[in-house]
Amino acid sequence: MPTSREDIAAANKRFGDLVSKRDFAGLAACYTDDAQLLPPGSQVVTGRPAIGPFWEAAVAALGVQAATLTTHELEVHGDTANEVGEGVLKTASGEAKVKYLVIWKREADGIWKMHRDIWNDLPK
Amino acid sequence: MPTSREDIAAANKRFGDLVSKRDFAGLAACYTDDAQLLPPGSQVVTGRPAIGPFWEAAVAALGVQAATLTTHELEVHGDTANEVGEGVLKTASGEAKVKYLVIWKREADGIWKMHRDIWNDLPK
Repeated sequence: MPTSREDIAAANKRFGDLVSKRDFAGLAACYTDDAQLLPPGSQVVTGRPAIGPFWEAAVAALGVQAATLTTHELEVHGDTANEVGEGVLKTASGEAKVKYLVIWKREADGIWKMHRDIWNDLPK
Repeated sequence: MPTSREDIAAANKRFGDLVSKRDFAGLAACYTDDAQLLPPGSQVVTGRPAIGPFWEAAVAALGVQAATLTTHELEVHGDTANEVGEGVLKTASGEAKVKYLVIWKREADGIWKMHRDIWNDLPK
């Protein structure tokens, strides 16, 4: 059975794949029902029905072609995990880097979903 | 005995008081030894000896006169707690609002310290 660390690494890989495919329903499904995104310069985005359209608009606005998420630190506390990581976005105008903190929840079916997701820019 | 929620509310109140007093050694002491700040547009700031000077420079740059932190959500998992909240900064040029996610650790002496601290802007 894969460890929580392996599950979350796989979920992050899948997130990048879904961005490349522009599968925004699939991206929304990476989050818990009552997840919250805390994007820079924006109000909190709450719930899966708002999260898909948020990513669709953000990917379009930046011309994101690919996203790679890398875990720097992961702490698991039962069915909750705290991840610090770095994201690299390949965009129309070059590469953008962010750092992030994500609270994951393992749901009843054993699948880890993002529950709270906040990020901000790294310097160029 | 105060609850973890009360302890963390008191720690946030204290953070604001220390900002007002420009007590940057005191602010650094609100963090764990190996804490990480993830400030917007900056590399990660690691460790208490770097955190005091970071806040000193940030408070000077923005002309921060007061900071008020308000918890929106707190989840406690043993000696770790995840907090989502909002900060209001009174600055030389008006009011600035941020949202944040903080991972707290309860240390051996029972004191809650900030361990991972990331934030970004709310819209004006």
